[in-house]
Amino acid sequence: MRADSRASDAARLLTEVGRPGLIVVDANDHPVAILPGSQVLRFLIPRYVQDDPALARVLDEEFADHLCDALEEKTVRDLLPKERVPLPIVAPDDTMLEIAAIMAANRCPLVAVVESMSKTAPMIGAISVSQLLARLMPEAATT
Amino acid sequence: MRADSRASDAARLLTEVGRPGLIVVDANDHPVAILPGSQVLRFLIPRYVQDDPALARVLDEEFADHLCDALEEKTVRDLLPKERVPLPIVAPDDTMLEIAAIMAANRCPLVAVVESMSKTAPMIGAISVSQLLARLMPEAATT
Repeated sequence: MRADSRASDAARLLTEVGRPGLIVVDANDHPVAILPGSQVLRFLIPRYVQDDPALARVLDEEFADHLCDALEEKTVRDLLPKERVPLPIVAPDDTMLEIAAIMAANRCPLVAVVESMSKTAPMIGAISVSQLLARLMPEAATT
Repeated sequence: MRADSRASDAARLLTEVGRPGLIVVDANDHPVAILPGSQVLRFLIPRYVQDDPALARVLDEEFADHLCDALEEKTVRDLLPKERVPLPIVAPDDTMLEIAAIMAANRCPLVAVVESMSKTAPMIGAISVSQLLARLMPEAATT
């Protein structure tokens, strides 16, 4: 998902693939951030309701129906948290153990794979902690 | 996944369902914590390698092959981080907006649904941020 894509398209993608977050890339397809699904909710739900979720009961149905309208005029960049969620980057020749160490150190469920370690290199894939664990677990045990 | 379940079973479940984390319940099935997949890696990968992932290159293949052996004698409880990842709890009659507000406030991709707000009430389900966004987004737009 590009940083200048429509925010509503990002929200829709989050619902379609059932993922907890999206990787955001710049105009060169270089990964720059993670957009967690919860961040979309932080943008949509008024701050005073986040501070006291019981207040959500006083909002009427019409409010809920038009909650997502705000996404139509925004870009993904507008949604990104000020404190960015770290997005570790790995190279195609990094070993599984290196990737595992990077995920562990960053407490991150996802790393982006880039063509090279240049700051403009495009993303060529992503590896989730689930995929990595599947490769690390003994094969006999996964059958 | 119970807190006293085998750690290796939890790691296997993380690989099978492709999820970034598991909800851990106590003996009453009351949800008590989230076990992020990255936390399993933090347990498996030696600290000095997490501090400097390039050191992973000096570990040999045999090390990688036996990395997961450590999970066999541990329980899920042994893996849980000392600083617990917050696991918000919601009741069956909470509204979508309340749940959205709770996820947003906790920056959490997942909430556990419990039978009642009693401290021993069993978990009856879970809601992901993806499922919630799918319900909040206008229906016309998701077709």
